[in-house]
Amino acid sequence: MTDVLAQLQSAVGGSLSIEPVMLESARSDKSGQRSVSPPLAVVTARSVEQVQAVMRIAHEHRIPVVPRGAGTGLTGGAMARGGELVLSTAGMTRVLEIDEADQVAVVEPGILNADLNRTLEPLGLRWAPDPASREISTVGGNIATNAGGLLCAKYGVTREAVLGLEVVLADGTLLRLGHRTVKGVTGLDLTALMIGSEGTLGVIVGATLKLTPLPTGAVATIAAYFSTIEQAAAASAAITAARLRPAAMELVDPQALAGILQYLGLPQRQAGSAHLLVQTDGDAAEEEGRDALAIISRLGGTASVTTDPEEGERLLAVRRAMHPAMEAQGQVLIEDIAVPRSQLVAMFAAIRRISERYGVAIPTVAHAGDGNLHPNLIYTGDEVPEVIWAAAGELFEAALALGGTLTGEHGIGTLKRRWLADELGDEQVALQRRIKAAFDPRGILNPGKVF
Amino acid sequence: MTDVLAQLQSAVGGSLSIEPVMLESARSDKSGQRSVSPPLAVVTARSVEQVQAVMRIAHEHRIPVVPRGAGTGLTGGAMARGGELVLSTAGMTRVLEIDEADQVAVVEPGILNADLNRTLEPLGLRWAPDPASREISTVGGNIATNAGGLLCAKYGVTREAVLGLEVVLADGTLLRLGHRTVKGVTGLDLTALMIGSEGTLGVIVGATLKLTPLPTGAVATIAAYFSTIEQAAAASAAITAARLRPAAMELVDPQALAGILQYLGLPQRQAGSAHLLVQTDGDAAEEEGRDALAIISRLGGTASVTTDPEEGERLLAVRRAMHPAMEAQGQVLIEDIAVPRSQLVAMFAAIRRISERYGVAIPTVAHAGDGNLHPNLIYTGDEVPEVIWAAAGELFEAALALGGTLTGEHGIGTLKRRWLADELGDEQVALQRRIKAAFDPRGILNPGKVF
Repeated sequence: MTDVLAQLQSAVGGSLSIEPVMLESARSDKSGQRSVSPPLAVVTARSVEQVQAVMRIAHEHRIPVVPRGAGTGLTGGAMARGGELVLSTAGMTRVLEIDEADQVAVVEPGILNADLNRTLEPLGLRWAPDPASREISTVGGNIATNAGGLLCAKYGVTREAVLGLEVVLADGTLLRLGHRTVKGVTGLDLTALMIGSEGTLGVIVGATLKLTPLPTGAVATIAAYFSTIEQAAAASAAITAARLRPAAMELVDPQALAGILQYLGLPQRQAGSAHLLVQTDGDAAEEEGRDALAIISRLGGTASVTTDPEEGERLLAVRRAMHPAMEAQGQVLIEDIAVPRSQLVAMFAAIRRISERYGVAIPTVAHAGDGNLHPNLIYTGDEVPEVIWAAAGELFEAALALGGTLTGEHGIGTLKRRWLADELGDEQVALQRRIKAAFDPRGILNPGKVF
Repeated sequence: MTDVLAQLQSAVGGSLSIEPVMLESARSDKSGQRSVSPPLAVVTARSVEQVQAVMRIAHEHRIPVVPRGAGTGLTGGAMARGGELVLSTAGMTRVLEIDEADQVAVVEPGILNADLNRTLEPLGLRWAPDPASREISTVGGNIATNAGGLLCAKYGVTREAVLGLEVVLADGTLLRLGHRTVKGVTGLDLTALMIGSEGTLGVIVGATLKLTPLPTGAVATIAAYFSTIEQAAAASAAITAARLRPAAMELVDPQALAGILQYLGLPQRQAGSAHLLVQTDGDAAEEEGRDALAIISRLGGTASVTTDPEEGERLLAVRRAMHPAMEAQGQVLIEDIAVPRSQLVAMFAAIRRISERYGVAIPTVAHAGDGNLHPNLIYTGDEVPEVIWAAAGELFEAALALGGTLTGEHGIGTLKRRWLADELGDEQVALQRRIKAAFDPRGILNPGKVF
């Protein structure tokens, strides 16, 4: 091991650290988990060449490598343990090129999503992926997890916003995948395969991003309240069925709403009340907002609506307070199931049943436009208790039974590994492992994650 | 071989054919190529189980299998030769489910794109991929090639319109890939990997498709003429730069335009004239149409514009006549390069240089919104002459030099195999082959295609 560290030191110099505080920070992410022991070392790479050098050494000595960005993942995908080497690209933050005519940006992986978008905004452009973590998560991490967000139903997930990638393979080989053209079908689509691969296939060291024009015109914001979550979900379904395309459409269930109102010091609503937040944008924002409001009123909701930006922010306050309000209640395991939109009501009912059966509070928000729910399992203590895992396991089973998926946008990491085969089936898992081996025959890239 | 045929006969009965006319038809597609000899047999599968049975037998006996839909591909991907077994899914044409609330359709692979869309239209829905072949090509074929079309710049390519796939692997295993939710990131994205894999990884036997609402409101159609292709291309670039999002934006170069006008019996325009066709749709169609017209006029174009559907069809006539007009001139090798939008003018100039150098007519149309050009190489005789291949090779090199790709939407097949490594590099080709082997260790699926 000393020999390996010496080789790394000689290859990347000051980019290598064995400072306890660095090692400690790489043991966890935002999933609430922590690895059993600190990793061997952390390399904060400054260049593609450094990433290649590290991978060559790790490959030669069969040292496991955990690629890492800002460490904001929610499933343990970037957590490192004893004997592993952490390879962080968080220090590679340059924007290498912005081409306004082609609406393309070429970036290093460590730039924060929000920093990139602040650079693009004056040009009237944006990179569409908008995970809730955008102020603290990197573009590379967004790509490694195929991050979603609030705007996906209308503006797509990360996979639809990446044209090409530069990837360092397990043995240090640098590959350029994809293209910078809007279309391209030369060979297998390895760019798409890399997106969401959670560090198991290669290290993303560069990305060619597809930009889109910032929507112009007004944004209409509607904050609605219903007597039951069923009514609120029915309204969101009716808005989709009416072929309206809100930029964002968020459901907050009764348990979550009560917690948020308490946190914000606002008066409680009638027990069982649920919240629906709708934002429309683009050329038809006002018209779509009016149509959505009519549907909400018809289905028993009381709503405020505005096209004023400041007032719109005020209406967003309840939804935005979800995360801090839940953290004020205890430790939070944020889950991430998705179901077909038509099954949202059934999924909310299943969550309530599971919450009662296990005596666990599970306040839940959902991106209603794409059927993606975030049940928040609240607990106390440093470790996730077994009862929480048991409740989470039942949540996954319920989602699968409704035609859904284990994870809409967070990934598998270590957190959901044990349920992977329930969704994919043993034969598909075996095929995925063979593909993993085609990239990484020695199995050194992020072992123990996903598979 | 008699033994294999007997096993197939016993497994799939009347779905097996060795009729010479069936074997003959499987020797070619729409690429203008023809295989050296007829295949062993053609199975027109009627069910998933038949596809599995065929693959099990082929796998056992190491018989190469060529998956085939309607045979409308443009690169030889579905062509079969001596010793190969053709496995057609063109007979599996059922729509298994349409869910209006979830905007999802579950279909068999053999349904024609246009037939599916005619079924969806009364529901106000569509499946967005719109290859020019949509009246004759299957959904399975569209998926196998990641088909594009006229509307991709605004509405995306096939990959963005498929949620899940049922795939039979080389050994007969049936896998369900993907999900029916809008989002989902469980494991590696094998759905995306299958899309565009041209029959080399598995046989697509079912698809869960993402539907989208049919655009409402008017469609504005603008038919513009310019003195030069440079002017026409500059106008299309300015329209994109103005952040307008036409549904379709098509360039017709001078050689193509002259040929079309002759074919239609219309008066010729001044030598060097080029055609730009723009269609806008959705809520802002009229406004976007007006803005596009202003840009066209400012940049020296003369244009007609209409929101009347019949008049719109009339304005489309020139672009629509491209294919028959070229076929009236001789045999046509339709090429399919793509370049960054900003390089369209440079690519048109390169095409003109190559046309002059080789003395080959290369009339060209382009989907200007996404930089995808279709140079038509015209020749006589049954075989593609060497000079045409040489000219095509230079076209590919020129596209790559401009940051482009060999193929925007048609695929590699047999036609572009020899240039594959020029774009991907040897190391990526080697990785792609390892992935192919993870799916198909005996190499029986569509050998000699792509790789």
